[in-house]
Amino acid sequence: MSTTDARRQDAVRPDTEVIRSVLDGRWAESRRAIRALADDPLFHPVSGLSVEAYRDRVWHQMTTLAADGRIRVGFPAAHGGADDVGSWITMFETLAHADLSLLVKAGVQWGLFGSAVLHLGTRHHHERYLDDIITLRLPGCFAMTETGHGSDVQALRTTAVHDPATDEFVVHTPDADARKDYIGNAARDGRSAVVFAQLTTADEEHGVHAFLVPIRADDGSPLAGVTIGDCGDKAGLRGVDNGRLGFDRVRVARENLLDRYAQVAADGSYTSPIANPNRRFFTMLGTLVQGRVSVAGASGSATKSALTIAVRYAERRRQFTVPGTDDEVAVLDYRAHQRRLLPALATTYAMHFAQSQLVEELRSVLGGDDTHAQRELESRAAGLKAVATAHATTTIQECREACGGAGYLSENRLPQLKADTDVFTTFEGDNTVLLQLVAKELLTGYREQFGNLDFSGTVRFVSEQVVETVVERTAGRSLIQRLVDAVPGRDEDADLRDRGYQLKLFESREKHLLDGAARRLRRASGATGTAAFDAFNEVQDHLLTAARAHVDRVVLEAFVAAIDTCADTAATALLDRVCDLYALSTIEAHRGWYLEHDRLSPARSKAVTATVNELCAELRPHARQLVDAFAVPDAFLGAAILD
Amino acid sequence: MSTTDARRQDAVRPDTEVIRSVLDGRWAESRRAIRALADDPLFHPVSGLSVEAYRDRVWHQMTTLAADGRIRVGFPAAHGGADDVGSWITMFETLAHADLSLLVKAGVQWGLFGSAVLHLGTRHHHERYLDDIITLRLPGCFAMTETGHGSDVQALRTTAVHDPATDEFVVHTPDADARKDYIGNAARDGRSAVVFAQLTTADEEHGVHAFLVPIRADDGSPLAGVTIGDCGDKAGLRGVDNGRLGFDRVRVARENLLDRYAQVAADGSYTSPIANPNRRFFTMLGTLVQGRVSVAGASGSATKSALTIAVRYAERRRQFTVPGTDDEVAVLDYRAHQRRLLPALATTYAMHFAQSQLVEELRSVLGGDDTHAQRELESRAAGLKAVATAHATTTIQECREACGGAGYLSENRLPQLKADTDVFTTFEGDNTVLLQLVAKELLTGYREQFGNLDFSGTVRFVSEQVVETVVERTAGRSLIQRLVDAVPGRDEDADLRDRGYQLKLFESREKHLLDGAARRLRRASGATGTAAFDAFNEVQDHLLTAARAHVDRVVLEAFVAAIDTCADTAATALLDRVCDLYALSTIEAHRGWYLEHDRLSPARSKAVTATVNELCAELRPHARQLVDAFAVPDAFLGAAILD
Ligand SMILES: Cc1cc2nc3c(=O)[nH]c(=O)nc-3n(C[C@H](O)[C@H](O)[C@H](O)COP(=O)(O)OP(=O)(O)OC[C@H]3O[C@@H](n4cnc5c(N)ncnc54)[C@H](O)[C@@H]3O)c2cc1C
Ligand SMILES: Cc1cc2nc3c(=O)[nH]c(=O)nc-3n(C[C@H](O)[C@H](O)[C@H](O)COP(=O)(O)OP(=O)(O)OC[C@H]3O[C@@H](n4cnc5c(N)ncnc54)[C@H](O)[C@@H]3O)c2cc1C
Repeated sequence: MSTTDARRQDAVRPDTEVIRSVLDGRWAESRRAIRALADDPLFHPVSGLSVEAYRDRVWHQMTTLAADGRIRVGFPAAHGGADDVGSWITMFETLAHADLSLLVKAGVQWGLFGSAVLHLGTRHHHERYLDDIITLRLPGCFAMTETGHGSDVQALRTTAVHDPATDEFVVHTPDADARKDYIGNAARDGRSAVVFAQLTTADEEHGVHAFLVPIRADDGSPLAGVTIGDCGDKAGLRGVDNGRLGFDRVRVARENLLDRYAQVAADGSYTSPIANPNRRFFTMLGTLVQGRVSVAGASGSATKSALTIAVRYAERRRQFTVPGTDDEVAVLDYRAHQRRLLPALATTYAMHFAQSQLVEELRSVLGGDDTHAQRELESRAAGLKAVATAHATTTIQECREACGGAGYLSENRLPQLKADTDVFTTFEGDNTVLLQLVAKELLTGYREQFGNLDFSGTVRFVSEQVVETVVERTAGRSLIQRLVDAVPGRDEDADLRDRGYQLKLFESREKHLLDGAARRLRRASGATGTAAFDAFNEVQDHLLTAARAHVDRVVLEAFVAAIDTCADTAATALLDRVCDLYALSTIEAHRGWYLEHDRLSPARSKAVTATVNELCAELRPHARQLVDAFAVPDAFLGAAILD
Repeated sequence: MSTTDARRQDAVRPDTEVIRSVLDGRWAESRRAIRALADDPLFHPVSGLSVEAYRDRVWHQMTTLAADGRIRVGFPAAHGGADDVGSWITMFETLAHADLSLLVKAGVQWGLFGSAVLHLGTRHHHERYLDDIITLRLPGCFAMTETGHGSDVQALRTTAVHDPATDEFVVHTPDADARKDYIGNAARDGRSAVVFAQLTTADEEHGVHAFLVPIRADDGSPLAGVTIGDCGDKAGLRGVDNGRLGFDRVRVARENLLDRYAQVAADGSYTSPIANPNRRFFTMLGTLVQGRVSVAGASGSATKSALTIAVRYAERRRQFTVPGTDDEVAVLDYRAHQRRLLPALATTYAMHFAQSQLVEELRSVLGGDDTHAQRELESRAAGLKAVATAHATTTIQECREACGGAGYLSENRLPQLKADTDVFTTFEGDNTVLLQLVAKELLTGYREQFGNLDFSGTVRFVSEQVVETVVERTAGRSLIQRLVDAVPGRDEDADLRDRGYQLKLFESREKHLLDGAARRLRRASGATGTAAFDAFNEVQDHLLTAARAHVDRVVLEAFVAAIDTCADTAATALLDRVCDLYALSTIEAHRGWYLEHDRLSPARSKAVTATVNELCAELRPHARQLVDAFAVPDAFLGAAILD
């Protein structure tokens, strides 16, 4: 029919299974195991349930998951697990193709509540609680956020005062602003909660620490002194019982302090292996990094589900005829439609590989004692979480619109995907705040001193350094260096599809943005108080752009490294084109910057747009294959328009 | 506290009432009347109802509105109305601050069903039906879209064949693809429907015409031959009963043809005052333009509600302390947060004035016989509908995220605003398709020959013309010409805040994009079939960009014209700054283009960004006042975080 159809015939078509196995990577088996849940109707996404019925259903799904024991894999061998955090995160990521309320509920129970006990607690906590947590005999909450403080965790106002008379902690909510808010598992199912509170012993304040606080009796009624509210209806995740917790001088035993990083003795004396309170606090938070990695992965899966629906629909949906014929045009043949879906698809591929790399890093760093690697991991997790969740939000929205009226009906799943994932940009760290952390990490070689949002500190610190930012390379270092070095001397001579040239453009943008931000902050040297805030604030958007540019570069490098591991020629050729589309559509999005900084000439900038269009046309015949390689089971997609 | 607070003191503060009255404009009284509904709890937005309870509630709201008769205002005097479409659309726009399910249900009943009978029917239809429609004794549907065809209305496949034996039309759904889909009022309440179907008389086909077809008996059961389905759960608008309609050789009397533009005699002979079938079809559709104008207005209102919530929250929400102090920073003081909300606020102002201008045009053109003005109106409505709904989608999303976790809870309204408006980009014309229509209109002086999506026609036509696109000016022609003419000879000398310079930048972009698109299409001259499609498709994204640039310019000119009518100095000064922010943030968003085409130097492009930042800081102290001037009643906002 159209030339596009002709091109479709020509293309050398790799085997979908090959691409799938490149995507599936090391934990392919874990992915397959979760995909197999699609055979059980219990795990199919549904819509239109009442809140109560939905919560019941999710609870039933949870108990089913708990019963078959597969979630043990991420826990220690002593508790029947395999200590395999990579497999656990991959399973979690894959589960995000099923109902996202289940995903979040599982994330709260095992990923947050369970991990907090595992990583912030010590042996006696593990022995006493972990099995019950794994089997769901002890449903629990992760109660950090308060009504008044979400992003600024150090400013939490719930108190935990050691009472030497009884050797207990008194957990207390001083006012409504300090009640715990949005807490998953709190409104209905939780029996216990890890509560973050300001610890005071013998009149000394030690900052935020985590305590295990029972909240409900076995019959489900709140324990004495505990007030529990329901957050009510939400945009999505309506199967998750988010709630509010207040404590009126609730007493817990001293053992309920999760005491891996700080211990309180019976007499109230306080000890910690980490002297600096700031560092201690961020070390504790750092152990919870897998939550962010999980959300980044889950965003990727939801994005893949949405793209699978939208691309498959766009292949079959026809609207308007080719002039002079009765043939109706498949909407994916329209350039405008390709523009809406294919760069997003390419970006989803790129992020997939960055995510896999991050999980690898998590696996190798977690539990070790390389604090530099740990900070690097946290920063990378923060950055990728922010970028992946933002990508999910815009892409799922685009997919909804790309399906026209059908995209608005629940029977076609996109409404649930949109509503459920909408909070991903907010929880596990608000994206703006996370990107800011990334920028600060990048700006200093002395990561230990940062991590908090002490503006004057930042300004002063940066000003004291001879700041020369270093672009650190990710996996595949030597490969990438080789590609960059091979770029011809004059950039204008390079082919736009030259990978080294693309890498160079990404890298130079990151470096220039970071250098500029550092210079601007240095100029504000010595400012304090409001002046320091103003100086920081002047640079804030610049910092955020720099952080994004950093993540973009990390993502591209991960894609390049992943393609390098693929042995199949046809698959490599296709993935190379997908990578071109990711790289060039990203450059196109930032072409204003490249033109302003003379990294692209006007003619070359226009050529970038033309090449993106070409790549869309070249990939259009492969679009179906590229989404099929995501291997989302039809029953998980749950979209009637694909029937 | 911060310098921002200091600036807040300095600013000359206009009276909020003055800004409000500039915004309220000619139909201020209609706006006030609808705002007064906020006193009645029946009209407060709610969430968490079951679908049935929600539909009941909306029905109750509808009957209450119908009973007090205010909606008559848009109907003819003969039916108790005032023929005042401006007032009617303004009321409708304002009602969009209340529950959006009510808005859409009202839009279907009176705006679509009622208007179709009014504009496509003739005297006997009016006499027989209008009163019942106005009073809701006859709830009805507007049944155009089919499962298989939404955007391409000319390709609908429902048939209506005249049977001379009984002098009836036989309305028939040939297959599942041809059933009417997504139809508002169909699943539960509708008794009748205006059905669009392909008319055949005496074996001659005449294209799509509209027929009144009863669908339900008084007891609510479907009439013989009519199959009714429910579209089920949706992303939002859950109080609207969208459904599917199938017809199995349903017979209706000949009078049920809405026969203003085409008549069928008892013997089946067909006559029409418009000879060209294509023109006839688009003339019929053109009478329904007010639907698009209404949706554009409603998008604006929903955007205002969301911004009111987000800005007021950002003023009081504090997170992180100013270095060295215990003062927590209001999040609206962060530049990143200003960047998220204030350019969107400025754009909302700009669009408000463009919308008011559009309603004025509608009022003066509708019912007249200036076909040129009518086509111009349709094009403008299509363009503004597309741009306003896209703006609503991105802005409401941004507001949701800007409120952090609170923005995800239904008690803070943003989830409903997002979900309910999400379909605005799709219904009343898919945005991509609408912008394409705008581009085609712009590309020719001979509007009559276009309007459909006949690519070869377009290509051929354009190629035959010596295409010289003309930028037509909107209201305030002479004022705008004066401003443009006053710009210094060398653009680089102009102040970025010079309105004439901004107008020139907008205008030159539009003109260059249109000229380029015309040139590219001309090159494809003579192509037919697939080649014509490919030629068109190559230019599609360029055409869409040109159409957007056109709308941007129209919007800016409307803003400029509106400020010119404001007599108050302080208000004018403030609105001027808001207009600067709209103009410069739009230029910033397109700076890649301006740089590529040498309309901005790199240094100047960077200065645009710096000026946008400055304007954000200057407007930050006025943000609250600017949203207060929207005058959305608190009870309509329905956001607990503002309590
Ligand atoms: C459905 C859901 C489930 C949740 N589950 C849990 C849970 O189980 N346990 C738990 O502890 N918490 C949970 N949360 C809370 C969540 O982690 C917080 O909402 C999140 O951390 C953001 O905090 P906040 O809502 O207080 O927003 P704030 O921190 O007040 O941020 C508000 C806005 O201000 C902006 N902002 C803040 N600081 C800055 C800055 N420095 N610069 C620029 N802009 C800034 C943000 O970008 C944001 O847009 C959940 C939330 C939701 C909605
Ligand atoms: C809640 C709701 C209420 C509705 N109420 C009514 C009602 O009361 N009465 C009624 O008649 N209809 C109603 N509709 C239908 C609505 O008007 C249609 O959904 C709309 O016109 C789009 O048509 P479609 O869904 O067939 O999408 P399609 O036209 O099939 O479009 C699908 C996708 O393809 C893209 N596309 C199509 N053509 C092109 C092209 N030429 N170039 C590039 N891209 C293209 C579109 O952008 C879109 O993303 C309603 C729909 C909804 C969801």
